[in-house]
Amino acid sequence: MVRNIKLVLEYDGSTFFGFQRQPSQPTVQEALEKALSSFFDRKIKIAAASGRTDTGVHAEGQVVNFKTTSGRNIRQIQKGLNALLPAPVVVKEIKEVPLDFHARYNVKSKVYEYRIWNHPCRSPLLAKRVFHVPYSLNVAWMRQAAKYFLGKRDFRSFTSISAMKKERSCVRTIRQFRIKKQGHLLIFHVEADGFLYHMIRNMVGTLMEVGRSKRKPEEIKAILQSKDRRLAGMTAPSKGLTLLRVTY
Amino acid sequence: MVRNIKLVLEYDGSTFFGFQRQPSQPTVQEALEKALSSFFDRKIKIAAASGRTDTGVHAEGQVVNFKTTSGRNIRQIQKGLNALLPAPVVVKEIKEVPLDFHARYNVKSKVYEYRIWNHPCRSPLLAKRVFHVPYSLNVAWMRQAAKYFLGKRDFRSFTSISAMKKERSCVRTIRQFRIKKQGHLLIFHVEADGFLYHMIRNMVGTLMEVGRSKRKPEEIKAILQSKDRRLAGMTAPSKGLTLLRVTY
Repeated sequence: MVRNIKLVLEYDGSTFFGFQRQPSQPTVQEALEKALSSFFDRKIKIAAASGRTDTGVHAEGQVVNFKTTSGRNIRQIQKGLNALLPAPVVVKEIKEVPLDFHARYNVKSKVYEYRIWNHPCRSPLLAKRVFHVPYSLNVAWMRQAAKYFLGKRDFRSFTSISAMKKERSCVRTIRQFRIKKQGHLLIFHVEADGFLYHMIRNMVGTLMEVGRSKRKPEEIKAILQSKDRRLAGMTAPSKGLTLLRVTY
Repeated sequence: MVRNIKLVLEYDGSTFFGFQRQPSQPTVQEALEKALSSFFDRKIKIAAASGRTDTGVHAEGQVVNFKTTSGRNIRQIQKGLNALLPAPVVVKEIKEVPLDFHARYNVKSKVYEYRIWNHPCRSPLLAKRVFHVPYSLNVAWMRQAAKYFLGKRDFRSFTSISAMKKERSCVRTIRQFRIKKQGHLLIFHVEADGFLYHMIRNMVGTLMEVGRSKRKPEEIKAILQSKDRRLAGMTAPSKGLTLLRVTY
């Protein structure tokens, strides 16, 4: 009997060349499929909610699924995989799901967090998970600007031109875009039905320019309308980004 | 004219063999003295609040001081040092202090934090800064037990026998010992006028055994009275420990 198993993964993106399999580079998918294939003693392929996340992007709640005919108990599978996986990846949750569940196609929404360390000095203890911005930022302006991202919009100005060409549609719906201040940490909390390639990093990079008073908050509206990548700002570095959770 | 400069340091302890200089191993003191000597172009020695912290122990607020006859502006010194220091160390704060200030001898109190990740699965994103405890802990019992540490006591049962022999006195005053729960993180927040070698790690290790119901909270009282290291519990691993701040 075929079973469909859903896993929730946490990983430290700094030790992988992104999620998706690549020839001759360590990736999360490769590590996971290797552990699965070794545990079940046959080749296993996974589907992932966010299969195209970049080198350096972390996850607290990446979701994948795979099929197996094994009758092994779900707890045994989790324990076995965690023993086989390298230390920077872990299976946090495991669940048997209906056969038609697909980690990528059934996504309702994804939540990402982008973290900026806004202090004149770097923070060695946070270094791997934050983008260090040493100058002061106008957070009120950034929050005002972020409001223009909310709702159903065409985000092609905020993806790469090559990625855009591969998409059927660049329309996405952003349900939440909050900017929280926790001491010297600035945390962007973004929820959408999906994201284009580099979309969050380009939105954050553009908001940074608003924060430095190089652009006005209203400019976001014009950039979205232009549908021109060249009008948006820089791509913020990947290490500040974490996939928090995926809902179905 | 001689000036006395106080620095507050943050560092990631996982990349150093402790604070204190050692032959042929990278230490925080060595990295800092090298940067200072290079910046001022003469040999400079520092004094540190907690000079004997172990390999793997982190700091958010280690304090050191050094003397110089240089007339360089304090901001220039900070910028220069941060440019010269390796990425895992940073000078967070800098201040000119009276000539009689000594980072070690003038300490009023030190605050350390010990972090346990209490979850069946490891956390790759927190791995470097927590001790992973996969079984459930009786936190109420641990809090009850921690109360016995409060006040002025002889802590020789909670240091190593060799370290004890070098101390003039093993009496220390613990002003605060809180155990906070933040999700699956268990954070021990300890403030004292000083700590013996391995003292916090041995207290935490013993509290862990209380948390696993291997000992009763009242046993702490008897262990303290025994003045016998062998009656206390194991030494919790160093990577969970962070020196938060030092007051003068």
